[in-house]
Amino acid sequence: MSRDTTAYRPVADPARWSGISHPTSVVDRDRVLANLRHVRDQADASGVRFRPHVKTHNSTTIAALYREVGVTAITVSSVEMARRFADAGWDDITIAFPVNVRAIEELGRLAAAVHLGLLVDSPEAATALDRIDAPVDLWLDIDVGYGRTGIPWDDPAALGRVLEAADRSGRHRVRGVLTHAGHGYHVSDPEARAALWDEVAERMGAARDALAGPGSSGSLEISVGDTPTGGAVSRFDGVDEIRVGNFVFFDMQQHALGTCTSADLALVIACPVVGIYPGRGEIVVQGGSVHLSRDAAPGPAGVMNHGQLAVMGADGWDLLPVSMAHVRGLSQEHGIIRCVPEVLDQVRLGDLVFIVPAHACLAANQVSEFVYRTEPGAPFRA
Amino acid sequence: MSRDTTAYRPVADPARWSGISHPTSVVDRDRVLANLRHVRDQADASGVRFRPHVKTHNSTTIAALYREVGVTAITVSSVEMARRFADAGWDDITIAFPVNVRAIEELGRLAAAVHLGLLVDSPEAATALDRIDAPVDLWLDIDVGYGRTGIPWDDPAALGRVLEAADRSGRHRVRGVLTHAGHGYHVSDPEARAALWDEVAERMGAARDALAGPGSSGSLEISVGDTPTGGAVSRFDGVDEIRVGNFVFFDMQQHALGTCTSADLALVIACPVVGIYPGRGEIVVQGGSVHLSRDAAPGPAGVMNHGQLAVMGADGWDLLPVSMAHVRGLSQEHGIIRCVPEVLDQVRLGDLVFIVPAHACLAANQVSEFVYRTEPGAPFRA
Repeated sequence: MSRDTTAYRPVADPARWSGISHPTSVVDRDRVLANLRHVRDQADASGVRFRPHVKTHNSTTIAALYREVGVTAITVSSVEMARRFADAGWDDITIAFPVNVRAIEELGRLAAAVHLGLLVDSPEAATALDRIDAPVDLWLDIDVGYGRTGIPWDDPAALGRVLEAADRSGRHRVRGVLTHAGHGYHVSDPEARAALWDEVAERMGAARDALAGPGSSGSLEISVGDTPTGGAVSRFDGVDEIRVGNFVFFDMQQHALGTCTSADLALVIACPVVGIYPGRGEIVVQGGSVHLSRDAAPGPAGVMNHGQLAVMGADGWDLLPVSMAHVRGLSQEHGIIRCVPEVLDQVRLGDLVFIVPAHACLAANQVSEFVYRTEPGAPFRA
Repeated sequence: MSRDTTAYRPVADPARWSGISHPTSVVDRDRVLANLRHVRDQADASGVRFRPHVKTHNSTTIAALYREVGVTAITVSSVEMARRFADAGWDDITIAFPVNVRAIEELGRLAAAVHLGLLVDSPEAATALDRIDAPVDLWLDIDVGYGRTGIPWDDPAALGRVLEAADRSGRHRVRGVLTHAGHGYHVSDPEARAALWDEVAERMGAARDALAGPGSSGSLEISVGDTPTGGAVSRFDGVDEIRVGNFVFFDMQQHALGTCTSADLALVIACPVVGIYPGRGEIVVQGGSVHLSRDAAPGPAGVMNHGQLAVMGADGWDLLPVSMAHVRGLSQEHGIIRCVPEVLDQVRLGDLVFIVPAHACLAANQVSEFVYRTEPGAPFRA
């Protein structure tokens, strides 16, 4: 399984990559499919609906791979993204972002065209949806401790007020409670993250139970989704729907958390080498914060790890350890890679290097020209 | 001149902004023109060529304003950007980024079409340009202390090797020496930044003098460009060309450095309010790290300032102090704004708020749908 290496080599077949002259997202289709199948199987075994989040890449082409493993429902993070995926043929879409009432007319058009799920966490938001004619699924956004959006899970009065506003018109169905436990990103110990899964499921169960009653709600579902806690458990117990997104690519942040192995890393950013500085032990690539984002992964003390190098072989890439090479600094277009002499000595001006980003969701959104590893000559735009 | 306020008010004329339903870059055209005229006048008075950097917005529409103040030469940061601006009619373009030899064919086409300046800092890069038929201006990239790219200013042997390689074919003209003193961003004291300007000019003069001699170079020029040091001096002494970019918009980083006043801030990101949390003293907007970037401006101790609110009046916007409202956290699509009760009490779900970003260059590149403040109904894409 391990796809780690400590031997840097220039790209195995440079002619195959000759068409790439600026930062490009390279996707390993087999790894994407394997990552999808893994979570799908886990969801199937747990009797849980799999509604992956496509904001990770925002690519309708890559989302076509999801269909290959049987995915029929997706999660998006904005009205605009919902429109793009609806236009690409997806007809069961949840916008897992607090409803944007400025876009109510567009939401109305979407609701008429697809099975649409929307997120509310206030009576005002729920009431605003009365202006949408076609029925939508309403999900009550619950704060289980992350502190970003949502109704506090342990505030039954607030939960009741939102449910009441949602039920008032009778036009839309309250489908359940939904949360994003983003605080899982800050829990480095896998056992603690597995415990966090249990805590989240328990709190969501309490929120759901507080809502059960005479309203129109019937039996409410529980929807959760974040790769760190989802990747820490073997079964998705206590929930009805899982909305993980990052798992499709993984990245150095997830690798540091232990939610993936090097063999699962399915996205690298191909970047042209534009400078070699042996005296500093550094190379510079076109691949800056507009490409990789400023996010960093945890690294050894004192290391700001904006990404690591992958060695591109004929049958895929292997990860080089952070101690041998990492992106230590970024400006708008420049990435500065610190590397050991064994790496630096083999890099030539004009080479492509392949960077596993710290945070794949941002890199893939910013570098929206993609190629599949096996077909690097034919870029597609998200 | 001051455009500061301590009174939050919702947008003066909400109907004018009704067409905006997702994050949008709002540009104050009058302020852009004033910022352009200010630096142009300073360059004229100093007898220095003004070649502004357009990577700040990467918008050919906004660059049309540069023509209104007499700008005929521009700086870009990538081959792709050069192509975009060449296609929009700009015919004097320097790519102030180490030459990307993977794009040599595209560079050849550009060189045949426009007056093209390229940046080299190694004999290998200079030699690679022999494959370009049409003549280009070569600029030797000099490291004056920033440590990102460039030949060390005080290494005459290295300077000579690059010059020799550049001169060897005789096809291209060595135009001068060029630097970006990005370390000016980390010097908060304006007097120290003015002193840094002098140091940079002196070091660039030394590099130029080390290159003067029997080569093809003739009289070499000095090109510099960064908003922090450029904004710290009243005259551009000791150089021949100035390539500042950020000054056209400014942002909270520049405001903290004192290179601009609140009245100069020419870009805000309009973001829909999607959640209001009085208990936390926070509102949440659609406007996350894919929009604002993760960059932060220096703020009071303990404050991560990813942006501040501007109050939109009928005749422009005023800046609200960081103590009253600031973007304290970002996830991919969410911006979390901490604000005092006087602000929070006046914000309604579905309002637009206007955020002055920490770093305008990244925000404007990521939110590439623009409107002019006076014509908010007609977005244009960069």
